[in-house]
Amino acid sequence: MRILVTGANGFLGRGLSARLAEAYPDASRLVLTDRELPPTFGSGIECIAGNLADPDVLAALLEPGFDLVFHLASIPGSLAEREQDLGRRVNLLAPIELASQVAARRPGARFVFASSIAVYGALNGQTVTEATPLAPAITYGAHKHMMETLLSDMTRQKALSALSIRFPGIVARPPTESGHGSAFMSLIFHRIAAGEDYQCPVPAESTCWWMSRAAAIKTLLHAAKIGDEVAGVVQPPALYACIGDVAAATAGVNGRQMRISWGHDEALRQLFGAMPPLDASRALSLGFRADANLETLAKAALSGDSP
Amino acid sequence: MRILVTGANGFLGRGLSARLAEAYPDASRLVLTDRELPPTFGSGIECIAGNLADPDVLAALLEPGFDLVFHLASIPGSLAEREQDLGRRVNLLAPIELASQVAARRPGARFVFASSIAVYGALNGQTVTEATPLAPAITYGAHKHMMETLLSDMTRQKALSALSIRFPGIVARPPTESGHGSAFMSLIFHRIAAGEDYQCPVPAESTCWWMSRAAAIKTLLHAAKIGDEVAGVVQPPALYACIGDVAAATAGVNGRQMRISWGHDEALRQLFGAMPPLDASRALSLGFRADANLETLAKAALSGDSP
Repeated sequence: MRILVTGANGFLGRGLSARLAEAYPDASRLVLTDRELPPTFGSGIECIAGNLADPDVLAALLEPGFDLVFHLASIPGSLAEREQDLGRRVNLLAPIELASQVAARRPGARFVFASSIAVYGALNGQTVTEATPLAPAITYGAHKHMMETLLSDMTRQKALSALSIRFPGIVARPPTESGHGSAFMSLIFHRIAAGEDYQCPVPAESTCWWMSRAAAIKTLLHAAKIGDEVAGVVQPPALYACIGDVAAATAGVNGRQMRISWGHDEALRQLFGAMPPLDASRALSLGFRADANLETLAKAALSGDSP
Repeated sequence: MRILVTGANGFLGRGLSARLAEAYPDASRLVLTDRELPPTFGSGIECIAGNLADPDVLAALLEPGFDLVFHLASIPGSLAEREQDLGRRVNLLAPIELASQVAARRPGARFVFASSIAVYGALNGQTVTEATPLAPAITYGAHKHMMETLLSDMTRQKALSALSIRFPGIVARPPTESGHGSAFMSLIFHRIAAGEDYQCPVPAESTCWWMSRAAAIKTLLHAAKIGDEVAGVVQPPALYACIGDVAAATAGVNGRQMRISWGHDEALRQLFGAMPPLDASRALSLGFRADANLETLAKAALSGDSP
């Protein structure tokens, strides 16, 4: 089995890459790619740096073909919103070309796509399921929605066996990572664990969907292994909780006091802190799992067991 | 005002092109483009033949910019299904590039896009509106859906002022035009008018949505003139009727007997002859109009007043 991970040097990609050899001990080829990559990533893993938006780079990378592709590469939403040309190239045109070329070399290859809950757009307070109408409010979400549509059609044609996973924000990203409007969802873990003051821009009662990187990686691996009969789109389960409760759980597992002042950035709250409940019963019945509870989430968010 | 029509040598394009000078007497530039075009199309109209999927052709064509673009160019559904690479280039990649380049040269340009009812996919018998969930069942419909998503997002950003029109099959296409599974919807007009026998592949009670080319052209011109506040997607009204009634009306206005044997192609009926009712009340309130009745449709479908 030949396996490719794109965006392998991103937050999710580094975590997945660290699990790959263990998850696929019999793989004949494990390839990581990103614009920049460390030269090595453990024995038996090939690292190929390059820009997927360059057709020659893409064609060389994909020879002679892959049986399984995790497509994680993208630029974040707020950057894509500012840099429209870059966003179109990286988040739309490169994935279209990647999917086509993977299918041309190995028809029916498994293609696990990191989609996003940004496909939904503004939510009206009603419980979300995979059947919730999509009306993306940012270009990043529009491109993810377009790719879901393309991949579902390619799956119908048996060109690929694709599964698009609608990820919420994954926590806790490194404090240095920028470009995410939802940065507060990660910073709150780091600041509490370090015993530092934190001015959270949104109110304590802001509701979000929470998923640790460990849970996200399990979701990706499960999506790859579950079998071709599960294709199309999946809304994985996530913890539904207000940020005040997440902060309290984080303080608890770290033995810290909370030193947080809660803000009132209404625009940010509307975008990231006003999520309705999530009904992921279909994904649960397929074996996808969220973090078990807020304490598990708080520990996993800050665990050092992934790079 | 500078105006561009793509796919100008197609069935809809030829009809629109013939109305353009009259509809826009003050235009500073009227440009028609298609892969092949007659060298002239009336005074004051430029004809530029070329392949929009070629970046150099596209860039040269679009200089120095257009205020209004009618994007009609596409390959038909059954051809796009067979020729996936061609379909992706013509129906997806070329329109993405066209929209981006039009917006780059003239931000906020009006962009009227010929989408299709193929975006809906299999319909369950319930009345269709613009809010009906989309689940395209053919690649042609998936690409149209993707373009609707992109154009709505570009409109949100004010890069374009785009309106996507979900056209049903337009009648009566020339008997020579192939690639459309719905060819029977056009052939029935031609055969009855000519007093010929016709073996219709679907039963007389098959229900379709009907729109003459004359009504489709009025729809396009209305979409261009209605104003930027109407953008996004519109489901224009169409006549909802069974093909037996359409045949009877056609025989009546032509003074012919019906010499039709009705077939039982269930696959074709499911795809094109099992349409549910259509609620186009939003479009009607915006001034869009269907053919007035079946007699009007039958006359317009065969009128020689368009090339």
